[in-house]
Amino acid sequence: MADIKESIYRELVSITNGHVTREPEELCCYSYDATGRFFLPHAVVFPAVSHEVAEIVKIAAKEGIPLIPRGSGSGMTGGSLPVKGGIVIATSRMNRIIEIDDETLVARVEPGVITGNFHHAVEKKGLFYPPDPASSSFCTIGGNLGECAGGPRAVKYGVTRDYVLGLEAVLPSGNIINTGVKTAKGVAGYDLTRLIVGSEGTLAIVTQATLKLLPLPEAVKTMAALFPSIHKAASAVSSIIKDAVIPRCVEFLDRSSIACVRDRFGFHVPDDIEAILIIEVDGSCGVVEEDGKNLETFCVKKGANRVITAADKAEASTLWAARKALSSALFRMAPDKINEDIVVPINRIPEMVLRIERIQKRTGLPVVSFGHAGDGNIHCNIMYDKRYKDAQNLAESAVDELFEATLELGGTITGEHGVGITKMKYLPREIRENELKIMRGIKAVFDPGNILNPGKIF
Amino acid sequence: MADIKESIYRELVSITNGHVTREPEELCCYSYDATGRFFLPHAVVFPAVSHEVAEIVKIAAKEGIPLIPRGSGSGMTGGSLPVKGGIVIATSRMNRIIEIDDETLVARVEPGVITGNFHHAVEKKGLFYPPDPASSSFCTIGGNLGECAGGPRAVKYGVTRDYVLGLEAVLPSGNIINTGVKTAKGVAGYDLTRLIVGSEGTLAIVTQATLKLLPLPEAVKTMAALFPSIHKAASAVSSIIKDAVIPRCVEFLDRSSIACVRDRFGFHVPDDIEAILIIEVDGSCGVVEEDGKNLETFCVKKGANRVITAADKAEASTLWAARKALSSALFRMAPDKINEDIVVPINRIPEMVLRIERIQKRTGLPVVSFGHAGDGNIHCNIMYDKRYKDAQNLAESAVDELFEATLELGGTITGEHGVGITKMKYLPREIRENELKIMRGIKAVFDPGNILNPGKIF
Ligand SMILES: Cc1cc2nc3c(=O)[nH]c(=O)nc-3n(C[C@H](O)[C@H](O)[C@H](O)COP(=O)(O)OP(=O)(O)OC[C@H]3O[C@@H](n4cnc5c(N)ncnc54)[C@H](O)[C@@H]3O)c2cc1C
Ligand SMILES: Cc1cc2nc3c(=O)[nH]c(=O)nc-3n(C[C@H](O)[C@H](O)[C@H](O)COP(=O)(O)OP(=O)(O)OC[C@H]3O[C@@H](n4cnc5c(N)ncnc54)[C@H](O)[C@@H]3O)c2cc1C
Repeated sequence: MADIKESIYRELVSITNGHVTREPEELCCYSYDATGRFFLPHAVVFPAVSHEVAEIVKIAAKEGIPLIPRGSGSGMTGGSLPVKGGIVIATSRMNRIIEIDDETLVARVEPGVITGNFHHAVEKKGLFYPPDPASSSFCTIGGNLGECAGGPRAVKYGVTRDYVLGLEAVLPSGNIINTGVKTAKGVAGYDLTRLIVGSEGTLAIVTQATLKLLPLPEAVKTMAALFPSIHKAASAVSSIIKDAVIPRCVEFLDRSSIACVRDRFGFHVPDDIEAILIIEVDGSCGVVEEDGKNLETFCVKKGANRVITAADKAEASTLWAARKALSSALFRMAPDKINEDIVVPINRIPEMVLRIERIQKRTGLPVVSFGHAGDGNIHCNIMYDKRYKDAQNLAESAVDELFEATLELGGTITGEHGVGITKMKYLPREIRENELKIMRGIKAVFDPGNILNPGKIF
Repeated sequence: MADIKESIYRELVSITNGHVTREPEELCCYSYDATGRFFLPHAVVFPAVSHEVAEIVKIAAKEGIPLIPRGSGSGMTGGSLPVKGGIVIATSRMNRIIEIDDETLVARVEPGVITGNFHHAVEKKGLFYPPDPASSSFCTIGGNLGECAGGPRAVKYGVTRDYVLGLEAVLPSGNIINTGVKTAKGVAGYDLTRLIVGSEGTLAIVTQATLKLLPLPEAVKTMAALFPSIHKAASAVSSIIKDAVIPRCVEFLDRSSIACVRDRFGFHVPDDIEAILIIEVDGSCGVVEEDGKNLETFCVKKGANRVITAADKAEASTLWAARKALSSALFRMAPDKINEDIVVPINRIPEMVLRIERIQKRTGLPVVSFGHAGDGNIHCNIMYDKRYKDAQNLAESAVDELFEATLELGGTITGEHGVGITKMKYLPREIRENELKIMRGIKAVFDPGNILNPGKIF
């Protein structure tokens, strides 16, 4: 990897008014994400406005330098990693919430806004932005758009895609485009908005998003259902939505997940508990009261030993904090892990649980499962220790079998984390050549020089 | 227009087992849509399964013959018209509901299924497919996908796009692709599903769709709020969602619309009523009762003279029948009309109403407005009589001014009817060259020979 030319570096300095770096120790901070992989960029720029982004892109395009859009680098599949070096475009300075319109229920934000900050801002106005990846306290809206992030509330409210009305974005040519609408509805021309959402920073750099909001639900009730068997919990998930109500979240924790955060729930979890469902309902006060009671009875009927309902916001927060602490707590269990966010049709969850047990048995590696079970999205963490001979190979064979089972059950290899670099080699198992050809064609239309986030997806 | 070659006709006969026609009187039936324009195709084929579609496409591709996918031909912008002749692919024989899975809340259907039939089928199983264009008793799911159809319930539930999980489609190369997932969630690769939805049959021919369902709401309440002033009604619309509840429908009828269907509502509409809002709420019985009462009070506070709540399903049906009769009743008012489905941000509806009044005054042409006001989507019908000198020009200048006002107020020229041929010349006012270039590039990736529905959108 050759260094970036001095003249180009100076142009970047001039465009961003000095907000650029090539200091090795600073570059380090932009060389990793949640995959634990590491690729150094040549430079990192911190533009403040779209036209600065456009200027930077024009230079990179002329010189054929890779450009990598980056939010907080919390991605799970390597989307923000400069695998071919180049210039990282960090959005941290583009972090303004431009407008929250409580008359039209529409907001406009820059990509660097932290998702959790946006939640607070809209909630202060009595509004609601449902997408809530468990990383919301540090991930950005730009990253959420890049991956089409989901989160616990997707069961009822859908994912990032469902809340994007329009985008301003910079093309790899340096041209700025505006897609979509500022209204609740619109169908003029092809849907470039949703094509860019989930494209993992490979088609365009989002510089502004128009997002749809909802009124904030009047009340929320959070409960934890403790099951003595993982199979009972899994089969409860698939019948809750069909037979009871649509909760806004149905999160699932298996025995090993529980072990990781056992003392954080705020209540005692007996040893014979094999799975916990965290269920949340929302709506008007009356509805929430009624739905909560129904769900409690329903879970007990489905085999829960106990259902604990959070008495207030503080108790609910404790419960969620335990759930959110899981990801990092896992690192303590084994130094290395592979995290895959598979999805199966919800009535196949019980079968998937069996398959995962089989994989554990065969490989001898612990597989810790938790996640957004309400929409069939299970995060499977294959735990291993690279230092042991063959552990890496064994872990990869576990992933292999996991994806095989997922696809066999009618599922997908990624519900919300994207393909990035870690799932690249598996993508052709789910998406065939005819479809991939079209996708590559689309990439070439946006980015004929392949400068935008090269080496990702396919 | 040269006729279709005998040898090709014979191939079509053989592929479809005789389900093809070139009889002029039969061709006539496939030469128009709701725009009232008329273009004869050379032949119409009626394939029964996807691989027949693929075979037909391959022949057309080889010969460079235009192919036009067609559902029921109820489109409002000419999407299904064979403007350059060619072969119409009618989906009427691909009308199977393949599966309605009440465990995963997913259905699979062929494109020729009539939307209303699909509603009945899922509702019988206690499920719910929200998209409901007013044409649901005759339009098809394939046409709904082609246009990304909306309808009254879009306010609360979104549009067709929001209920499509995956597609099987035939590319202009004759290759069959599968996009998206069969699960609640999935982000593998670019979002081809939503790119094809709303592409007006120009990118691929949908041969099967996987659709997301919801549980059927327990109860529905329908009411009509009668306003003495159109401005009061318009400003009520924009505050209902913000301050009261999210109804599933907020339909709007202006004075002329009311006049068209006055005796169909099932209740007396006094002469001093200038606008009616048809509002519908759904949910559990308790919620619906509560929301209904709140809305009644709210509308009165906002200036409604009277709010009439349907006592039962029959009364609600009468009300909806009146609303749905509007479109055809309008034809009696004036022999010619231009119908535009503009959208503005909901808080700009009052201003839009003023602009429409100004257009009427300037041109002397009646403009009848009604539609899905809850999401700012107003159907403006410019009424005229071609036989009068200059009427056509005047009507077109009215459209001009209408779109100008719409865009000025931050709106879009089409909320759900698409661009087709009627809005082609206006599209560049909303979508600039940089975006159009990308769209044309995408078209070329899917359809390098430009055989699929040529002459549409751009
Ligand atoms: C503890 C933890 C919990 C998590 N929980 C969830 C969860 O519940 N649900 C979920 O969906 N994900 C979850 N994630 C994954 C991750 O947080 C999400 O993918 C998030 O959307 C990434 O945001 P980011 O700002 O960190 O983006 P980055 O990692 O910086 O980037 C992600 C992708 O988006 C692209 N990108 C970033 N900004 C832009 C831009 N302006 N324009 C174009 N492309 C851009 C990047 O190039 C990259 O491909 C979790 C991660 C962690 C570490
Ligand atoms: C009285 C009336 C009321 C209406 N109300 C509404 C309303 O409330 N909301 C609304 O959104 N629309 C409404 N419409 C417009 C129209 O009904 C919708 O656009 C509908 O989706 C068209 O369906 P269709 O089967 O008639 O499609 P067609 O008119 O036959 O085709 C529409 C488009 O879809 C394409 N297409 C059809 N089948 C396929 C396929 N299998 N694969 C790919 N492309 C395909 C066609 O090429 C064409 O471009 C109304 C129309 C009328 C006449």
